[in-house]
Amino acid sequence: MKAMEEKILAEGQVLPGHVLKVGDFLNYRIDTDFISECGKEVARLYEGTKIDKVLTVEASGIAIAFAVASALHVPMVYAKKQKTSNVSDDLYSASVHSYTHNTDNTVIVSRKHLSAGERILIVDDFLALGNALNGLISIVEQAGASVAGVAAAIEKGFQGGGDALRSAGIRVESLAIVEQMDENGIVFRK
Amino acid sequence: MKAMEEKILAEGQVLPGHVLKVGDFLNYRIDTDFISECGKEVARLYEGTKIDKVLTVEASGIAIAFAVASALHVPMVYAKKQKTSNVSDDLYSASVHSYTHNTDNTVIVSRKHLSAGERILIVDDFLALGNALNGLISIVEQAGASVAGVAAAIEKGFQGGGDALRSAGIRVESLAIVEQMDENGIVFRK
Repeated sequence: MKAMEEKILAEGQVLPGHVLKVGDFLNYRIDTDFISECGKEVARLYEGTKIDKVLTVEASGIAIAFAVASALHVPMVYAKKQKTSNVSDDLYSASVHSYTHNTDNTVIVSRKHLSAGERILIVDDFLALGNALNGLISIVEQAGASVAGVAAAIEKGFQGGGDALRSAGIRVESLAIVEQMDENGIVFRK
Repeated sequence: MKAMEEKILAEGQVLPGHVLKVGDFLNYRIDTDFISECGKEVARLYEGTKIDKVLTVEASGIAIAFAVASALHVPMVYAKKQKTSNVSDDLYSASVHSYTHNTDNTVIVSRKHLSAGERILIVDDFLALGNALNGLISIVEQAGASVAGVAAAIEKGFQGGGDALRSAGIRVESLAIVEQMDENGIVFRK
């Protein structure tokens, strides 16, 4: 999506440690008109694919996932993060390592919010190593549902998470794929 | 909003301790078409009022705030919650007591995401005692911005937070006001 690449070049900021700051339009401060357009673009890419529900994880995934689910006119579910690994019987859960914060979280979804046989589109703001998305894929599988695909606003191609999912046969659509970034600038995948 | 009252009666669940569960359409699992309609209704109620930005707090406020901000075509900012009270210089912060979890959180917003002179609409899923909203109001004031109004999807009228804000001269619009709820049912404010 050309508009996403232009937005990243105009408003994004590259920091040391493979950090791309886009908090002025994608998280924290959300450019609602732009994110709504992103939602429509993901819906267009998945046109003709059966999708029953959109799944994301709090908090930074919620806005983009809401925009995608609105454009698809399907419900959206978000997983909650908790520090403890104590999980009650009425929840699906997966352990997720955060590269950014070097912590482990348990992500949880109520059993009543995912059903066997459903086709789930997993959406997140970033796809880097893919740890969070792999946790969500595990939850979808625990529910007996299946992954219709993955969509990310921004993929850090050089961290490999997206390509690992593609190799595993999962459809991944990212609105922009950053192949390289440093103090000299940002290079997108063609 | 009649549709919100009907939705609460059809899908809400009253639990002991003044808990109203609406996790099947308002939080966790989000009925995107319905929440988009709620966003449009809030925008309609505030028609003619100058609003530069929508402010909410993660995580359950994000979806409804995104819907409101989309309908108003303004950006949306969400405050983050943190357990510690350590706050860096580039943040506005306020302490918020959670009645539900009996914990204190610090809510934070980057200084660059709110500007002096802006008119801010504060949006949240629930308005009960008003603790979270009062924290957001404090942050708006710290930024030298002003509160254009408050909007909540559901107000628990019997907990008094909304009426306290109204008494303080703040405009509050709630899409449904629960006056009373128990095992016998739910009574809305006329």
